[in-house]
Amino acid sequence: MAPSMEEEAPSKSRVTVVGSGNWGSVAAKLIASNTLTLPSFHDEVRMWVFEETLPSGEKLTDVINRTNENVKYLPGIKLGKNVIADPDLENAGRSMFLCFYGTDANMLVFVTPHQFMEGICKRLVGKIKGDVEAISLIKGMEVKMEGPCMISTLISQQLGLNCCVLMGANIANEIAVEKFSEATVGYRESREIAEKWVQLFSTPYFIVTAVQDVEGVELCGTLKNVVAIAAGFVDGLEMGNNTKAAIMRIGLREMKAFSKMLFSSVKDSTFFESCGVADLITTCLGGRNRKVADAFARNGGKRSFDELEAEMLQGQKLQGVSTAREVYEVLSHRGWLELFPLFATVHEICVGRLPPSAIVEHSERIPKLSLVEKST
Amino acid sequence: MAPSMEEEAPSKSRVTVVGSGNWGSVAAKLIASNTLTLPSFHDEVRMWVFEETLPSGEKLTDVINRTNENVKYLPGIKLGKNVIADPDLENAGRSMFLCFYGTDANMLVFVTPHQFMEGICKRLVGKIKGDVEAISLIKGMEVKMEGPCMISTLISQQLGLNCCVLMGANIANEIAVEKFSEATVGYRESREIAEKWVQLFSTPYFIVTAVQDVEGVELCGTLKNVVAIAAGFVDGLEMGNNTKAAIMRIGLREMKAFSKMLFSSVKDSTFFESCGVADLITTCLGGRNRKVADAFARNGGKRSFDELEAEMLQGQKLQGVSTAREVYEVLSHRGWLELFPLFATVHEICVGRLPPSAIVEHSERIPKLSLVEKST
Repeated sequence: MAPSMEEEAPSKSRVTVVGSGNWGSVAAKLIASNTLTLPSFHDEVRMWVFEETLPSGEKLTDVINRTNENVKYLPGIKLGKNVIADPDLENAGRSMFLCFYGTDANMLVFVTPHQFMEGICKRLVGKIKGDVEAISLIKGMEVKMEGPCMISTLISQQLGLNCCVLMGANIANEIAVEKFSEATVGYRESREIAEKWVQLFSTPYFIVTAVQDVEGVELCGTLKNVVAIAAGFVDGLEMGNNTKAAIMRIGLREMKAFSKMLFSSVKDSTFFESCGVADLITTCLGGRNRKVADAFARNGGKRSFDELEAEMLQGQKLQGVSTAREVYEVLSHRGWLELFPLFATVHEICVGRLPPSAIVEHSERIPKLSLVEKST
Repeated sequence: MAPSMEEEAPSKSRVTVVGSGNWGSVAAKLIASNTLTLPSFHDEVRMWVFEETLPSGEKLTDVINRTNENVKYLPGIKLGKNVIADPDLENAGRSMFLCFYGTDANMLVFVTPHQFMEGICKRLVGKIKGDVEAISLIKGMEVKMEGPCMISTLISQQLGLNCCVLMGANIANEIAVEKFSEATVGYRESREIAEKWVQLFSTPYFIVTAVQDVEGVELCGTLKNVVAIAAGFVDGLEMGNNTKAAIMRIGLREMKAFSKMLFSSVKDSTFFESCGVADLITTCLGGRNRKVADAFARNGGKRSFDELEAEMLQGQKLQGVSTAREVYEVLSHRGWLELFPLFATVHEICVGRLPPSAIVEHSERIPKLSLVEKST
């Protein structure tokens, strides 16, 4: 049942949100508030939902479409009546990609847990046609020995799409209740496309800025979790705000140096954006990485991260601990361990090779990083 | 009674700390631990003390010299036996400046409350001879309508000395108990002199980095207090970590833009140093500016800063409130108000023209700052 396209103005964009967790639901809400007023977008925002049966016996998509709330992942918040939940990725794909190519542009917002992305890309391969743009809101790509496996790159390569990223100090529940916040869009070439994403996400309480630095923006979203582990150790050791600020600053410096050594295109200025310093602050003040690392240090490293995670996070895993291991492998593989004492020490503490207090005891190694800054 | 200079190696430096408050005493302790081991410095560190009579009837200098502790401003901490308290600025001046010029270099560390500096300079004019270098640890210079009145400039102009600055995330009591921390030395021309200051202050728990940017470093130490007021409002309004991080980031951006518009020599990279992002974090997490602004917002702006200061700070004044007023005057005078919505709004809230919630309600004005960034 193809809609009558001829009745609509040409070159309107249609937005689909792939993912419907806590952050995905908030993203759908932000976008849906804008598509209603922006003439260059269709009102309807389709949200792909990984279908679940609720304890009541109802399907999650049915409840979302009936109540206009994601009762499981964002209860109490109206998403906007123009958000339509769709349980079938390929159906959603078919309706979007097949019906509208030719006249309309499609904009795909990826906001799933990162481990699902490879499977989702496989299911979408060959089904995307026409003028389609993508953006990834997914934090925490993997850092493999040969370099980071960027989610934006995965999407670009697997689906043949240009892919921007949106990162920042974005605690979903705070944005859901419209508390003031910011975000950064990273784009590769087209400033015009970036501005379109900025338009789609911006609200008076959610300020979005675009920078031409996909890798820098995306790496910030991952590496900050390693620094949050370090900040948690400082909290657990009760070392005070001076030390915590110093560790956060050194962490930001290592984030910058590491990103620039991996991608020469990465810009210093990106780290002043919301994705950089602001997200780092948020993550080091609150956040589960900081919290579990705090508990780890208070226990003198005697209880493992696995044990504390199981007890404190109800089955969620800490990204910071696995990212620290992945970063350590890159540093070790490339002979950079000495240049990144904070990153290296976080991993060594996590695996029990060093005590939590090493996070500052190894500080005398820190000035060596000035070598990196000169070389980058 | 001039010492026998011939017996000592030439070109040894002698350090005098002008000031003996909380931070001055910690600075003397840091320096004194280094002069004992560095061959290019005389062991003795002379500390000028504004003389007071303690409740016991003893003079403060006598107690410091007897117990090796500044019992009033840094109780419980040994300063080092080579710290000698001297009550007479001009005597201290005479012994240093007259006896040693010709053979020895003198290094003067200024660390008094900023309102005393003009008087101190007047008393020292004409008394400083020979090879003398100065550094200012004084935060909170005044920002007059025609531009900031930098303490380092005051020292340079009044005393004819080259003057560096040392700023950073430096809560004196935390450094006193040797918790890990960092600082930034800003210098004008001579890298060699800067390195000498770095050597003099650095310890394994106190990491000092030099950058060629006196104005940038010194302005950070003042402007952060305005941002801390904004952060305090966010805390008082219970707006959460996202909003606080966003406000801190916007504040950092305005600090950078304002400094660069006043001094084209100011470098972006300075704001990544301890004096920039780290000091900002420390000040916005703890600190009295944040604390009183928090109380101000919780009272809905109904109790004035003067009243809250009197109640909460035992006679101390908030630098952030007066700096916000001074900055506002500059912005207003130069027609820059629109470009610095956060700085402007902080002042307008402080004087009761806007409610505390304006700190984020005026956020829609914030994107205009991108104009500044392009122009600087």
